[in-house]
Amino acid sequence: MSASRLGRLQSLLRDNDLDALVVTHPPNIRYLTGLSASAGAAVVGRDRCVLRVDFRYATAARTAADTTPGVDVEVFTGSIDAAISAGLSLLNARSIGVEAEHMAVAGFNRLLASMDGEKDHAPTLVPTERLVERLRVIKDAEEVAILREAGRRISRVGRRLRAFAVPGRSELEVAAAIDSAMRTAGFQRPAFDTIVASGPNGALPHARPTDRTLLAGEGVVLDFGGVYDGYCVDLTRTLQLGRVPARFRRMFDAVRDAQAAGIAAVRPGARAIDIDGAARAVLDARGLGEAFGHGTGHGLGLEVHEEPRLSKLAPAEEVVSAGMVFTIEPGAYVAGVGGVRIEDDVLVVSGGCELLTDVPVQL
Amino acid sequence: MSASRLGRLQSLLRDNDLDALVVTHPPNIRYLTGLSASAGAAVVGRDRCVLRVDFRYATAARTAADTTPGVDVEVFTGSIDAAISAGLSLLNARSIGVEAEHMAVAGFNRLLASMDGEKDHAPTLVPTERLVERLRVIKDAEEVAILREAGRRISRVGRRLRAFAVPGRSELEVAAAIDSAMRTAGFQRPAFDTIVASGPNGALPHARPTDRTLLAGEGVVLDFGGVYDGYCVDLTRTLQLGRVPARFRRMFDAVRDAQAAGIAAVRPGARAIDIDGAARAVLDARGLGEAFGHGTGHGLGLEVHEEPRLSKLAPAEEVVSAGMVFTIEPGAYVAGVGGVRIEDDVLVVSGGCELLTDVPVQL
Repeated sequence: MSASRLGRLQSLLRDNDLDALVVTHPPNIRYLTGLSASAGAAVVGRDRCVLRVDFRYATAARTAADTTPGVDVEVFTGSIDAAISAGLSLLNARSIGVEAEHMAVAGFNRLLASMDGEKDHAPTLVPTERLVERLRVIKDAEEVAILREAGRRISRVGRRLRAFAVPGRSELEVAAAIDSAMRTAGFQRPAFDTIVASGPNGALPHARPTDRTLLAGEGVVLDFGGVYDGYCVDLTRTLQLGRVPARFRRMFDAVRDAQAAGIAAVRPGARAIDIDGAARAVLDARGLGEAFGHGTGHGLGLEVHEEPRLSKLAPAEEVVSAGMVFTIEPGAYVAGVGGVRIEDDVLVVSGGCELLTDVPVQL
Repeated sequence: MSASRLGRLQSLLRDNDLDALVVTHPPNIRYLTGLSASAGAAVVGRDRCVLRVDFRYATAARTAADTTPGVDVEVFTGSIDAAISAGLSLLNARSIGVEAEHMAVAGFNRLLASMDGEKDHAPTLVPTERLVERLRVIKDAEEVAILREAGRRISRVGRRLRAFAVPGRSELEVAAAIDSAMRTAGFQRPAFDTIVASGPNGALPHARPTDRTLLAGEGVVLDFGGVYDGYCVDLTRTLQLGRVPARFRRMFDAVRDAQAAGIAAVRPGARAIDIDGAARAVLDARGLGEAFGHGTGHGLGLEVHEEPRLSKLAPAEEVVSAGMVFTIEPGAYVAGVGGVRIEDDVLVVSGGCELLTDVPVQL
């Protein structure tokens, strides 16, 4: 783990007049300390970080801290709120940031109550947003290396989709085959429930696989993601089983061209809404604007949906920068007919983007 | 989906002087409406429920609502906060509960701000806890049937563990074999990352599988869970590969006896701390009290860790009731030596409990 992640956060604390930040979002804890755990907190002060975990994560936390300068581990018993509160006292922190997007109202109130005994110190809890996320959105060299490797591995699975999605198999069976191939390819787990949406089910962007049998003559959307060394990649292809109806071919070509336009629009300084707009314009021009109801892409990293969001709802001033990694995945969904979605993962580099995934786009 | 779940919640609303509850925790949305989605909100008023989802979940939400009396669907564009706020206006709600354990501080503040234009109505947001969870903790007939079937299916996988965990395979390979068997057994996905902790790794209660090769002459902890029709079951066995060292045998026997004592203590009216205490007393008596650092069990249902919690930290007055489903999983962990954990799932029934899992407990 690079010590500079913690250092960069500590400099954000100073910029925001915070003495400390209570980091409770597990991907943020992992980012800063190297620890993967579903519970615990990293209490980050201006010059030290105390990782507070319970018994279950004691050994893993110590291992992570050993390779992350500036991180100490304290194992607590009892409540996490009391443990955080104790950590803040140790740091003598008075202006304390919490992760407002992640800390629940109840936890916030309990933390406030647990600091009650220290009225003379008068610490204040300050809701903050995106302090760690702002760092995470630009991947460092270590992260880029992991994501490139993950992209290569998911592409190997993607090139075998035609062997998995054969008429006569159920959606669930095809999903199981994909998941098994991801495991074999070295992924720790799926990044989300694999989508296999055949025929009319393709019209549901977030379909869940059913026991419906794939039939010759219909399309199937296959959308799957894997977690590799903690990092998520995500790939979608749409295949047609057998003869291709003209209407489906037109949808496919439109989405393929929309995706190409989206990818072509990616470069440092491009606005998120313009990348989305580039893909959307193609679908609009083919009469499929209404059929494309979601955004063009989302960031990838320790979470499968993270910043940046490429959508028409993105703030007008939001631009992408070198080191960002995200999906480009336009789609078109027509009830009763089916759907098409095509998704690849890109890394923004000087002058454009590098494709992390490499699977032919063919119906 | 049974309409009575919504009816029981609505009667809790009346008891708590709430006009509405904003349900944002996905398992709670699923429980009340049948919709599985990672986003959206169920705005529950005293006599109707409006399920607000975005485009992605429109079809799934309508399908769920069709079989759940009292649920209407509204598809929103824009922000979820504005959508919730609009739903509350429609209900003319003034005293509005939010799920304080699940709603983030930022979402709470945004929701407050979005209601700003209605100062004459003066609605108030009330942090609530466990309103839906209180219902979920007692499984209804539909849920019991699913959990029984899930228990049968995971037991089939559990009886094959000895074929998966063979010397020469890596922990990751064994985990992949278990996950694949769970898929074949009909599970939608693992309920958590499968644990295969061999030799000294067994000393970490939450070990993650590594490329370490299983060796003859050592123990291995195998802990896995599956999601079946939305419901989670969870099973752990500890195996010894080949010759059993006397020290490991003693640990195993102690944990096995502790688990049996825990299961024997389960009946309606038993206190959570006493069930935990029954298992803990056995380990204490064998000198392994310090080696057992976690609780004896956790509830199972739409989440893999839910109420009740069976631990020494449980409130003294908390008792278990017929219809609750939870794990009994004492363990012992000794750094450098390894670990033992044995876990089964039980349903509390009149006079005792029914084991949902059925796999021989043998080293």
